[in-house]
Amino acid sequence: MTEPRAHRSSSVALVLTLALALVGVTTAVHAGSPPADTLARQLLRAGLPTNTAHALLAELIRSCGSRLSGSVGAAKAVDLTAAMMRRYGFVNVRAESCMVPHWVRGKVEDAELVTRTGTRRLAVAALGGSIGTPRRGVSAEVLEVHSFDELRAAGTRAAGKIIFFNRPMDPALLSTFAGYGGAVDQRAGGAVAAARAGAVGAIVRSVTTAHDNVPHTGVMSYADSITKVPAVAIGIRDAEFLSDAILRDPHARVRLRLSCTTLPDAPSANVMGEVRGSERPDEVIVLGGHLDSWDKGVGAHDDGAGCMQAIEALRLLKELGITPKRTIRAVTFMNEENGSRGGKAYAVDPHRAMERAYAAIEADRGGFMPRGFTVQADSAIVERVKRWAPILEKVGAGHIMAGHAGVDVSPIVAAGAAGFGLVVDDQRYFDFHHSANDVLEAVHPRELELGAIASALLVYLISEEGL
Amino acid sequence: MTEPRAHRSSSVALVLTLALALVGVTTAVHAGSPPADTLARQLLRAGLPTNTAHALLAELIRSCGSRLSGSVGAAKAVDLTAAMMRRYGFVNVRAESCMVPHWVRGKVEDAELVTRTGTRRLAVAALGGSIGTPRRGVSAEVLEVHSFDELRAAGTRAAGKIIFFNRPMDPALLSTFAGYGGAVDQRAGGAVAAARAGAVGAIVRSVTTAHDNVPHTGVMSYADSITKVPAVAIGIRDAEFLSDAILRDPHARVRLRLSCTTLPDAPSANVMGEVRGSERPDEVIVLGGHLDSWDKGVGAHDDGAGCMQAIEALRLLKELGITPKRTIRAVTFMNEENGSRGGKAYAVDPHRAMERAYAAIEADRGGFMPRGFTVQADSAIVERVKRWAPILEKVGAGHIMAGHAGVDVSPIVAAGAAGFGLVVDDQRYFDFHHSANDVLEAVHPRELELGAIASALLVYLISEEGL
Repeated sequence: MTEPRAHRSSSVALVLTLALALVGVTTAVHAGSPPADTLARQLLRAGLPTNTAHALLAELIRSCGSRLSGSVGAAKAVDLTAAMMRRYGFVNVRAESCMVPHWVRGKVEDAELVTRTGTRRLAVAALGGSIGTPRRGVSAEVLEVHSFDELRAAGTRAAGKIIFFNRPMDPALLSTFAGYGGAVDQRAGGAVAAARAGAVGAIVRSVTTAHDNVPHTGVMSYADSITKVPAVAIGIRDAEFLSDAILRDPHARVRLRLSCTTLPDAPSANVMGEVRGSERPDEVIVLGGHLDSWDKGVGAHDDGAGCMQAIEALRLLKELGITPKRTIRAVTFMNEENGSRGGKAYAVDPHRAMERAYAAIEADRGGFMPRGFTVQADSAIVERVKRWAPILEKVGAGHIMAGHAGVDVSPIVAAGAAGFGLVVDDQRYFDFHHSANDVLEAVHPRELELGAIASALLVYLISEEGL
Repeated sequence: MTEPRAHRSSSVALVLTLALALVGVTTAVHAGSPPADTLARQLLRAGLPTNTAHALLAELIRSCGSRLSGSVGAAKAVDLTAAMMRRYGFVNVRAESCMVPHWVRGKVEDAELVTRTGTRRLAVAALGGSIGTPRRGVSAEVLEVHSFDELRAAGTRAAGKIIFFNRPMDPALLSTFAGYGGAVDQRAGGAVAAARAGAVGAIVRSVTTAHDNVPHTGVMSYADSITKVPAVAIGIRDAEFLSDAILRDPHARVRLRLSCTTLPDAPSANVMGEVRGSERPDEVIVLGGHLDSWDKGVGAHDDGAGCMQAIEALRLLKELGITPKRTIRAVTFMNEENGSRGGKAYAVDPHRAMERAYAAIEADRGGFMPRGFTVQADSAIVERVKRWAPILEKVGAGHIMAGHAGVDVSPIVAAGAAGFGLVVDDQRYFDFHHSANDVLEAVHPRELELGAIASALLVYLISEEGL
């Protein structure tokens, strides 16, 4: 059986070799800029010895802490990122205003399980956007379900209960983002589904890969026509405890007490600064992340990482004396987590009328080892970018695939820009995501820096070679 | 400039598409075994929900601690891995004896820096194999060098000194293994070079990517004709401190006190167990790591990870009811760190005369996210294995390249087997390697399991399709 295949293998190898040989010569030099593979080495040499992205992230976190939209931390971060951009000599540094939702968690956040045998605190965190409870709380028996279908099938049994959505992320999927996508409906829509069934609250199993008891928050929404009920995330170990407890004692009750509330919209801003293009300055390549974070943890991976990588990528290009053909702009977007107001405001800001949105790259998958980029554009552009794979692979980011770019840059992509998303190793991300686990110490300096380097190399290729 | 390239891009894309189309059909089914891409999904489904490799690693570390050759921990680990293999129903479980070097660190390990202005402890660890010092220590002025050439150029200035080898790993290299390779000569050969120059000891900057003060040990060697002098690794922060201190005070002295010593060789063993092949049982595919570790830390990444992955890979194949054509054998080799006696003994054990060494896969780069495999074999085999890349990529391990397989399996490869090395993301490895940082908590359960899954899939492809 082996022989014919070995023969075919040789043919394939020959074809692949020819193909790769063609690919290998596609990176042209034009006057005034180094060949991209030279730049790849220069970026590694300029970035990795100091890992400045990590130093910037430490500065952001030390100065601002968590950065939920409307918070003091977010306002400080707007000022700080502008200061960082000025420090490194970016031009046209500015904050473009936008109004953002202003939800606050408040001081009371408590869940008490009362069974026949006793009382026990559960580790919970209000979901972002949840209403609070009356001061004495909301107390009810608990109905555990694993899907909206199961809840519908429960019929009137849901009335007056707290619905406990306990479907885990599917651990068998290689992509943790796929696992997340298969479970996050419970968090986003659990409160509406619970209220529609006549329930008085929702408890959602944290959408995480970690096996600890740290609750992972995140945005949820209400529907205008449906009663609003409070909703919390629960830590994994307590989710398992609760599931056991209500099996043993079906009349066990949970009392939720939450002081969270939504205040009037608050002013905030996207921050940006750039390196002007020498030949086509009106063609703008955006490189960004989102500056806001959840209030649990300090948003180190999500998405201080992406913001600092954007600043670091431009800093590196400037340090290496690069004068790009097109304008490269670092943008730290506001309010990705609970409204995307920054991304939407950026695309319609009057400044946009004077320029062309050429490309937009977002880094919002955590500061892990880069693997490559998604490309959200016409298939011819995807194929074109795939030809850069051997160069991008020199910094570890040669895996190019069609795919969604990112939430913040979606309006820019909708306006005609080619979209890109930095793809990183994702096995650890959901251990940290939206929780108190998302701290500086969880970010590896070299991995973070390599993401900045990969982004710098991609924007350079886009700027110099065009799409 | 863009247009001609875009045209060429299309041709390349077409060629690549054709090539990939050919690759896509190469995985044949034969009677009794599932197609490899089906198995890939089955392995993810069987492995990731429980992450048994991590549970086994926890058991190994809890029961045995560190496992330096000749130590109690290593002896316990021999018994435990055999018990694990029996627990999961492997057949022909046995320990094949070998004698191993028996170096012990002892209780005294101390370095004191004495300058004009005071005295300070330095964080050091004796290198493996180093002689000890007289009880009162070895005290001398310090000469800092960054290469053997620089030491030779120092001429008589080295006489009577302690030589401080302070060249860092090059951080600008994407591959940390390349950085390690460029610095480890100081650790391996520093003592001989120092003694040849008339010096009385060697202090070597830890070969690490971490910026902490934890010394990283590792093997060093002496030459028969050269005086033996003691040698230690020093933590990075203290390396920098020492470098500054001797610049300010050239007469600063370091006193080394070490109680380490080499005892007579001790008996130990390689442990192995297997799943017998149904069609070609005498053709053996070895999957292994090394059971011994350094005595600092507990050898979680290096290489408890690789050993537990080998056991887990076979366990998974058995759980899925796979009856391979060829025999698949898990081997935990002894003494990779300071002598490779296990690897050498395995290849010449009388049992080998009754079988054919078909392939040998080693996992010894840490329990991180798998990327692919090196192949150490004839180029036709390398090309053949590259055709499996699309299947291996389903578990994240599709990057196939010619390269060294591993230290333990080298003698098996020399005997004619095709060699393979599990390649993983390496950005974090040298933060932990050979130091007190190498603990269970540094190993991510999903990343570790995915390495076991990748190895299981590769051995299955080798077994069923042949090389």
